[in-house]
Amino acid sequence: DKLNLMTAGPRGPLLVQDVVFTDEMAHFDRERIPERVVHAKGAGNTFLVFENLLSLLHLFVTLEHKTKPVHYTNVWNWSLHNSHTSIYFHDMSPLMLVLVFQTDQGIKNLPVEEADRLASTDPDYSIRDLYNAISNGNFPSWTLYIQVMTFEQAENWQWNPFDLTKVWPHKDFPLIPVGRLVLNRNPINYFAEVEQLAFDPSNMPPGIEPSPDKMLQGRLFSYPDTHRHRLGANYLQLSVNCPYRTRVANYQRDGPMCMFDNQGGAPNYFPNSFSAPDTQLRFVESKCKVSPDVARYNSADDDNVTQVRTFFTQVLNEAERERLCQNMAGHIKGAQLFIQKRAVQNLMAVHPDYGTRIQTLLDKYNTEGKKNTIHVYTRGGASAVAAASKM
Amino acid sequence: DKLNLMTAGPRGPLLVQDVVFTDEMAHFDRERIPERVVHAKGAGNTFLVFENLLSLLHLFVTLEHKTKPVHYTNVWNWSLHNSHTSIYFHDMSPLMLVLVFQTDQGIKNLPVEEADRLASTDPDYSIRDLYNAISNGNFPSWTLYIQVMTFEQAENWQWNPFDLTKVWPHKDFPLIPVGRLVLNRNPINYFAEVEQLAFDPSNMPPGIEPSPDKMLQGRLFSYPDTHRHRLGANYLQLSVNCPYRTRVANYQRDGPMCMFDNQGGAPNYFPNSFSAPDTQLRFVESKCKVSPDVARYNSADDDNVTQVRTFFTQVLNEAERERLCQNMAGHIKGAQLFIQKRAVQNLMAVHPDYGTRIQTLLDKYNTEGKKNTIHVYTRGGASAVAAASKM
Amino acid sequence: DKLNLMTAGPRGPLLVQDVVFTDEMAHFDRERIPERVVHAKGAGNTFLVFENLLSLLHLFVTLEHKTKPVHYTNVWNWSLHNSHTSIYFHDMSPLMLVLVFQTDQGIKNLPVEEADRLASTDPDYSIRDLYNAISNGNFPSWTLYIQVMTFEQAENWQWNPFDLTKVWPHKDFPLIPVGRLVLNRNPINYFAEVEQLAFDPSNMPPGIEPSPDKMLQGRLFSYPDTHRHRLGANYLQLSVNCPYRTRVANYQRDGPMCMFDNQGGAPNYFPNSFSAPDTQLRFVESKCKVSPDVARYNSADDDNVTQVRTFFTQVLNEAERERLCQNMAGHIKGAQLFIQKRAVQNLMAVHPDYGTRIQTLLDKYNTEGKKNTIHVYTRGGASAVAAASKM
Amino acid sequence: DKLNLMTAGPRGPLLVQDVVFTDEMAHFDRERIPERVVHAKGAGNTFLVFENLLSLLHLFVTLEHKTKPVHYTNVWNWSLHNSHTSIYFHDMSPLMLVLVFQTDQGIKNLPVEEADRLASTDPDYSIRDLYNAISNGNFPSWTLYIQVMTFEQAENWQWNPFDLTKVWPHKDFPLIPVGRLVLNRNPINYFAEVEQLAFDPSNMPPGIEPSPDKMLQGRLFSYPDTHRHRLGANYLQLSVNCPYRTRVANYQRDGPMCMFDNQGGAPNYFPNSFSAPDTQLRFVESKCKVSPDVARYNSADDDNVTQVRTFFTQVLNEAERERLCQNMAGHIKGAQLFIQKRAVQNLMAVHPDYGTRIQTLLDKYNTEGKKNTIHVYTRGGASAVAAASKM
Repeated sequence: DKLNLMTAGPRGPLLVQDVVFTDEMAHFDRERIPERVVHAKGAGNTFLVFENLLSLLHLFVTLEHKTKPVHYTNVWNWSLHNSHTSIYFHDMSPLMLVLVFQTDQGIKNLPVEEADRLASTDPDYSIRDLYNAISNGNFPSWTLYIQVMTFEQAENWQWNPFDLTKVWPHKDFPLIPVGRLVLNRNPINYFAEVEQLAFDPSNMPPGIEPSPDKMLQGRLFSYPDTHRHRLGANYLQLSVNCPYRTRVANYQRDGPMCMFDNQGGAPNYFPNSFSAPDTQLRFVESKCKVSPDVARYNSADDDNVTQVRTFFTQVLNEAERERLCQNMAGHIKGAQLFIQKRAVQNLMAVHPDYGTRIQTLLDKYNTEGKKNTIHVYTRGGASAVAAASKM
Repeated sequence: DKLNLMTAGPRGPLLVQDVVFTDEMAHFDRERIPERVVHAKGAGNTFLVFENLLSLLHLFVTLEHKTKPVHYTNVWNWSLHNSHTSIYFHDMSPLMLVLVFQTDQGIKNLPVEEADRLASTDPDYSIRDLYNAISNGNFPSWTLYIQVMTFEQAENWQWNPFDLTKVWPHKDFPLIPVGRLVLNRNPINYFAEVEQLAFDPSNMPPGIEPSPDKMLQGRLFSYPDTHRHRLGANYLQLSVNCPYRTRVANYQRDGPMCMFDNQGGAPNYFPNSFSAPDTQLRFVESKCKVSPDVARYNSADDDNVTQVRTFFTQVLNEAERERLCQNMAGHIKGAQLFIQKRAVQNLMAVHPDYGTRIQTLLDKYNTEGKKNTIHVYTRGGASAVAAASKM
Repeated sequence: DKLNLMTAGPRGPLLVQDVVFTDEMAHFDRERIPERVVHAKGAGNTFLVFENLLSLLHLFVTLEHKTKPVHYTNVWNWSLHNSHTSIYFHDMSPLMLVLVFQTDQGIKNLPVEEADRLASTDPDYSIRDLYNAISNGNFPSWTLYIQVMTFEQAENWQWNPFDLTKVWPHKDFPLIPVGRLVLNRNPINYFAEVEQLAFDPSNMPPGIEPSPDKMLQGRLFSYPDTHRHRLGANYLQLSVNCPYRTRVANYQRDGPMCMFDNQGGAPNYFPNSFSAPDTQLRFVESKCKVSPDVARYNSADDDNVTQVRTFFTQVLNEAERERLCQNMAGHIKGAQLFIQKRAVQNLMAVHPDYGTRIQTLLDKYNTEGKKNTIHVYTRGGASAVAAASKM
Repeated sequence: DKLNLMTAGPRGPLLVQDVVFTDEMAHFDRERIPERVVHAKGAGNTFLVFENLLSLLHLFVTLEHKTKPVHYTNVWNWSLHNSHTSIYFHDMSPLMLVLVFQTDQGIKNLPVEEADRLASTDPDYSIRDLYNAISNGNFPSWTLYIQVMTFEQAENWQWNPFDLTKVWPHKDFPLIPVGRLVLNRNPINYFAEVEQLAFDPSNMPPGIEPSPDKMLQGRLFSYPDTHRHRLGANYLQLSVNCPYRTRVANYQRDGPMCMFDNQGGAPNYFPNSFSAPDTQLRFVESKCKVSPDVARYNSADDDNVTQVRTFFTQVLNEAERERLCQNMAGHIKGAQLFIQKRAVQNLMAVHPDYGTRIQTLLDKYNTEGKKNTIHVYTRGGASAVAAASKM
């Protein structure tokens, strides 16, 4: 059962002693072994670049194209890291914080058919577009806003503010502009600067700390754990992960590919009688209160439909609703019938109109019958949609 | 300069002291680091399966579809491992040998447009087709033929018989049927049985030995070297690479993930005074003569066009020639103009009609001008086609 | 500052969001890279075996020789895993539990001089002794006792019951015999069965759960994390770590050297619509109460001397005290003078007689002056004793 | 059978198609997995330093102490890299070359008993001595000489000049001084500058090339192969292996821990139409003649005793002979009796006096009978001496 995590209180932080989680996640982080190099040198690069850049560009593409040519983008996901509520301490009175990036280029969508066509005839379309824009000096940018919630508001709010699937409505928690993200140069070398990038939510500036958002708590472990597997224990020494070549003073030593002087002769144990890094008070995290009740908590009963219904009925216009339904049905149509049925039930709970439209589209696909004998061959013996229908 | 290898004679075996080659190749074998796991669990499997199976299926697909939906197949490559001439010793009089697999299903092609359409709407088409055929008991098979050349014939032949880009014409060296390859079950688990597969041309049964084919000589090192990187030093203990769980007696011990009893208490040094594996005479390789002249030899001046011309003018019919030209132009059109020009020159040398048709198609694409400002972003700063045009 | 961990309450469980701890520990787990293979094959084995077996035998040697030939054994460490208090649930009323192993062979010590002599002339002495005893059928054994403390007793006890440096006095918490550990065969192959062993405190049978002992909480993460680095993500598939070849059903797939069928076609995502492992209620951990106050707590002010004093004055006899002082002084004598001084201060706090004896021995060594110009060359620029003096 | 390598002629270069050798050696290079980190941080450093420095210092210690405290030094091995004959091209007329380093500090030996005593009481003795000498400005140095042999001399010489166990007598091939090696600073950080060092005989300056010495030919592959395993494919980017931070232009890209800009946008395929490294004529290796007869050659019948006899009777004085016999007997005494017997037979072939002295010492040890029931527990089930006796 992967829905339960051992936390202090149903909304509290994850415990190290949830070894079921750690064991599961650490193995997952190591599922991949190095790919075969199947292409002759110099061939196939374009494809590789496409595939890899996607992970980086996902967020930008998402913002530009609410329905777009890359199939794994999620239409609800319209802000960056609204996922992870962070806690901000201002004069020691903590506030909760959501970061929202909004595109300065305006939102533009590709019709489904055009997206499909590009995927087959010009898979580099989106990357080339971005690459050329930056090359030509048309630097794309995103404005960074924050949303703020006090602890009192949080306790009385109808949803769990630490649930990353919940949006903080802009009218209740207005967007406050605080900065701007500008992409002003392309990578000089793809492998060195993109493939070796190691994003990690546990790198936070002093004053910003993780919320108990369960997904974030898990990522605090999982992201750096993955980097250690992919890149090795000294990945933070790579210049792309240490941009200003900051000289670090800590207690880490040795390990594969130690790039610099390994901190010379400084002691690597603590406490010690020699000059060595010591606690710097301004970096000490804040104290906080959690629930004293440690258990595995299941969040499956949370209200997962109200906000989606609002989005469907009030945020989207009719044309957008239609595109959404076509996209969604396109994802579900390959699944076995009993799984299609279960998926439609979930969508009915969001809104009868939503479920009904999907069912109609599915009926049409199934009648065309082009693929009713598909044995989709996946690693798990069942299609991805089966899982998606329950998630 | 990667065209030169240090060999004993221009057609002789590769020397270990060509450390330039080893250093280059060993690094290449380690270019890949483990992929990011970007998908949620249970999602994205279909794509992964597609991509990976291709490396295995490449050979089968190639046989069925002389021009087919996967873009990296080569129309000249119409037999399996005609690439690598092996030497066969019959009563100690050595013969040279080529293995040819021919499909028992007949050759069927997809038109270019249909292949493009499937690539976008149904990328699983080929895999599903194969998977279902095997599931339903329609086991695909290939007949194995050999072609035989004596040493005397080899010395007088107009081409280098060890050049994998040269075909041994069937009329001069007739196909002799010797066996059949049948695919009679699908993998139970994709990762265990496909992703962990470690093909290696240095695994040859006694009596068959490598020819000095330069590509094969390089692969004798490169394939197992890659497996050691991807899978670890004990990859031969994986059951898919040791199908009958043969109990090995040799001098290898330890290393990551030693699966069984590590050969118990048997000595791991040689010579020794205890029971341990010793040379088995019937496994000793044959002796042979090579040229005594060690140097770096460049094979760039070999005749690389005559056989291609024969293929173009005499093997293909008009419809096939047209498809070939469309495929080829489709691959070249994305390149910069000066590279297109160079590629057409090479094709002109094969046959003026071939080059002219390609140029006409390219002119059409370039005039449409849809992509005349492409900055294809590759790792090497130049498109794959640039390299392909010289290979 | 490595003395502080982020826990729920000063005695509570460790939080995943203590990324300072995780980052530090995960890097430490990866400090080692594969050794050079400097010896010719067949040579040097004896030494290797010696060094490695020590880590396994440490516990046994310790029990037999309270002061013994191997220099890194600790005289206080006279029971196995008294370190880690576990919680035992009997009819749902939790008890705290300490496991104690006591040798059935009786405690026998080597004089310091004899231990030194053996270390130089016969470093295999202890291993050979153990190996031969098992070979000859004189199986060494240890009786397993438990000590039990109720939650009420814990709350009123003068020491932190979760502090692994504290002993639970046998008169207050009597030893209850529950089993016996017998070593009844030697390894068939050293590498396969010893070097690949992966002990892990997070493997607990249902009904026994980790206490909040800080060292144990850290090891719940650190031990399996180290195994993943040393052996790879599938280390639990090695037969020595999965002794009865248990067939596992969980959600872990793939990764380097997946030994068996990778769980065939079972789904690897959750929840799913197919047969797959689900939560088994009898394996669900208990719920518990913790302090709600999350912070970094420093345990440096705990009473670290009273039990040591009792051990020195009441457990050891005069001869044992003398051996202890000689051992301790031998460890300290190589340090710089200001560190020797600090170490003696700590020992004075235990008991003036203890500190005075050590100082006397150190004065003697220092006067002999044989090594007063030592520049001990360590990785950290200072000797191990410097650290030890503060720990 | 590990005595046979596939070469072009009995004294010729090793072939890549000797996959038995490559497979064996590449696995051996990967035998080691990362050590357990068993010590608390800050402890055990001294020991670690000792063990590791030995591999670096072996050569220096050897030079100073013909019989010395470290047990794996070989008394015949009195010059550095006399092992590997290199070929030097002067005005294109090739010469064969041996490099000899001789200590400028004079040869001083430790008596066996003193060496044993230090090994137990002061194992840091040799390292500290070297470290302090350098710290204090007493830089140790070695004079580099070359010995030169023409091709004509080589063909007529009584021994194989490419056999690393053969000495080129100084009277026939006089020492010509050409330079000096001075150790003028200690490492700033042990791990970064010693543990990550990657010596590799395939790194030769233009003009010096490998001889067909079989051990050297094997090391051309084995050394860099080991470094790729220990340190990763980009080990040459570590500053200790690229001392002057040379900017390399070649075709290697990517791989774990690519430290710099991965050569920016330069093409990584060849040939190419863009600016990229091309063959530099002055770095092209020379051409040479080898035997055309490829086979596995066994060198076991070579004369392995004459030079040893000369060393025993004419180079050593009586005191040195006595020390040698005591050392040798000390190594053999732990072996089983039938192996002792075989070893003595080999030594008898060198000189009857040598064998007789050893036998006398062994008789004494065996009679003392202290260890006649030893079951030495090694990985291979037999002691190192068994192997050594045949080598």
